[in-house]
Amino acid sequence: LAGGTFSQVRQLLNSLPGAETAHLLESSPPREREILWRLLSQEQETEVLQYLGEEVRVELLRDLPPEELVPLIEDLDTDDLADLLQELPEQVTSQVLAALDAQNRERLEQVMSYPEDTAGGLMNTDVITVRPEITFGVVQRYLRRRGEIPETTDNLLVVNRRNQFIGVLPLTRVLISDPGTTVREAMRTDVEAIPADRPAHDVAKLFERLDLVTAAVVDENGVLVGRITIDDVVDVIREEADHSLMGMAGLDEDEDTFGSVWHTVRRRSLWLGINLLTALAASAVISLFENTLEKVVALAVLMPIVASMGGIAGSQTLTLVIRAMALGQVQEGNTRYLFTKELAVGALNGLLWALVIGATAALWFDDTSLGMIIASAMVLNLVVAAGAGALIPIAMKRMGIDPALAGSVVLTTITDVVGFFAFLGLATILYASLV
Amino acid sequence: LAGGTFSQVRQLLNSLPGAETAHLLESSPPREREILWRLLSQEQETEVLQYLGEEVRVELLRDLPPEELVPLIEDLDTDDLADLLQELPEQVTSQVLAALDAQNRERLEQVMSYPEDTAGGLMNTDVITVRPEITFGVVQRYLRRRGEIPETTDNLLVVNRRNQFIGVLPLTRVLISDPGTTVREAMRTDVEAIPADRPAHDVAKLFERLDLVTAAVVDENGVLVGRITIDDVVDVIREEADHSLMGMAGLDEDEDTFGSVWHTVRRRSLWLGINLLTALAASAVISLFENTLEKVVALAVLMPIVASMGGIAGSQTLTLVIRAMALGQVQEGNTRYLFTKELAVGALNGLLWALVIGATAALWFDDTSLGMIIASAMVLNLVVAAGAGALIPIAMKRMGIDPALAGSVVLTTITDVVGFFAFLGLATILYASLV
Repeated sequence: LAGGTFSQVRQLLNSLPGAETAHLLESSPPREREILWRLLSQEQETEVLQYLGEEVRVELLRDLPPEELVPLIEDLDTDDLADLLQELPEQVTSQVLAALDAQNRERLEQVMSYPEDTAGGLMNTDVITVRPEITFGVVQRYLRRRGEIPETTDNLLVVNRRNQFIGVLPLTRVLISDPGTTVREAMRTDVEAIPADRPAHDVAKLFERLDLVTAAVVDENGVLVGRITIDDVVDVIREEADHSLMGMAGLDEDEDTFGSVWHTVRRRSLWLGINLLTALAASAVISLFENTLEKVVALAVLMPIVASMGGIAGSQTLTLVIRAMALGQVQEGNTRYLFTKELAVGALNGLLWALVIGATAALWFDDTSLGMIIASAMVLNLVVAAGAGALIPIAMKRMGIDPALAGSVVLTTITDVVGFFAFLGLATILYASLV
Repeated sequence: LAGGTFSQVRQLLNSLPGAETAHLLESSPPREREILWRLLSQEQETEVLQYLGEEVRVELLRDLPPEELVPLIEDLDTDDLADLLQELPEQVTSQVLAALDAQNRERLEQVMSYPEDTAGGLMNTDVITVRPEITFGVVQRYLRRRGEIPETTDNLLVVNRRNQFIGVLPLTRVLISDPGTTVREAMRTDVEAIPADRPAHDVAKLFERLDLVTAAVVDENGVLVGRITIDDVVDVIREEADHSLMGMAGLDEDEDTFGSVWHTVRRRSLWLGINLLTALAASAVISLFENTLEKVVALAVLMPIVASMGGIAGSQTLTLVIRAMALGQVQEGNTRYLFTKELAVGALNGLLWALVIGATAALWFDDTSLGMIIASAMVLNLVVAAGAGALIPIAMKRMGIDPALAGSVVLTTITDVVGFFAFLGLATILYASLV
């Protein structure tokens, strides 16, 4: 890419499908991304936009005047368009809305009336509805006259006179059944519609558990307002997974891998600052024992071990519990079992590695007391780590704090403080009694 | 649940759909899980099995004799059945295979001939094929006679006489087109089939990028061997995400949240042992500076700060790069940009927090040299951390090591060793020159 002329690059871009071009843009540093984008024709831009991730999409469109923006984005799916408009300046949004035709505007406003991370925010409004009393012959004539069926349509949605959802009619049943069959006879009523205010997370779990491809969305009166398709659910699953993974490192799941340096520094520095505070807390604990450290310098050599093993063991429990909570596996009835199990695992692993490190320390510094001190501190810290790893996410969820983000900071603070305090405290007591 | 009698529980289980019962089993401690499973009728067990996660499914079925096993599992999807059989003892597998009818056995053996994490291992064999020369009228008569279309079928697959894949026929086109249209006129040939040996990871990326619901799978001669459906792809995405998240903490993505204590201890202790070795390496570095530590005990108080900030900054870069690699965003052309960007971010954040910690340390211990030492060590360690965070996953991938698993251990070893060495080394030089 770097070596080619503009016309060569343009030729290459012409030969790529939209999804590949979008991937190329996302994998490019800012300057190259800008240049590539300018080389695309308006038609290509329209196509590429639907495949771009949200952060990159907003970046490329933020500075366009509304009159250039509207033709580019009016063909996006309603849910993507709604997400995009929520990221653009208020003024641009209203100009875009004004430029759309009445039907599209109404649909868009409906999607935008729900938060982005709910069923309503995920839905598209491209539904095909049928009435229960008509026959398959009529359905098929209607579909032929319509001439087009939206992508990813596996079911027609059956509604009553008041547009309330009453069931789904799989397209496959229309294909295999006699034309005289009525919709009512063949429709499935064991499929529930999703209330528009359902969180996106629950929607994803429902799709996964029932292997759905699409699902109807209804408002509080049971009136059909749209449908959710599996591709948008896949995006939710991917975003949630990214959120857990990136959150553990204090990163935003939308973080642009090739974003600018300044932007990245600002985003990440807060996290480092918070961690500096917790590291200072650990230092404050250590400073309580300066006298002991002065006398036995081996303590300074060994003390990071206790703290770090506690951090590792605790983060195993923390990660496990956060994932189990995301999968909806943690409930009132099994919390106690989970907690007890993790404590037991912590204690057993603590004992095992306490023996190893105790023996190592005793031999290294030729000091049996030192071995006993570090072994005891290790068991204690690993049990505390397991308990903290299990309780922190549960407590944070009750308090409405996101454990994927804040969990690991709180955990390491605890394991550092307890680790240093236990090890140096025990040492102070024991060496004082020996002298 | 705990309070009810068996018959009450059984009544409850009868009222739950299979997917909910499966979720209940997965959320139960081992003993309760065993009891619940026994309370299910054979019919229910068959239904619940298809919704259970692999680890729990294997656990429940491992000890059944083949004659009880076969009726339970013969209705599973081919891909699930293949995965399950690969986990059961060889002897059981061959007995199960022998008990299946010839067609099912042949299909199953075909799926089992591909590794579990390839397109071939993911596929089902329930395809409906049509020839290009027939008309839609014939297609629809054929489908009516067939009477049943497999779940999640959006396309019929078009093959030639040698059963080679040549295109897909969306069911929606059959519905809206004239019965006289031939398959050849209406089929899509812009959709490629997936080679059976393609890794599951690539299959998932393809589904995500092209918003697919199903895709055809072909062997090396282009012969159609099966199809992959989106629900199995969702499982792949979920498993990969779990793998990244759990791998960072040294956990297996299949780890059973409510597994037994012993099992868990064994799984996790190896990881703790590896981390103990790296912590000992850090201690060895500290022990090089015992003399300096003895003279200036404030160094012992502050030294964990430098190491821990390096670990945090490094893991931000590491996590970002691992995710970018999973999304296929890291290529030859942009590695240098990414590396330089992360180094710059590390340096800037290093400078910022070096100033803060330098001033804090100088004030706390009333020692300007100490402030300068910790500030310099901090900048150095954060730059090294950023470089290591970016290079480790790229290097590991080239060597065929999974960075999600081993990356964080190697990283913290480096940031600990460099952090302690830089801080204590600088202190030794500076204080020696002062004395």
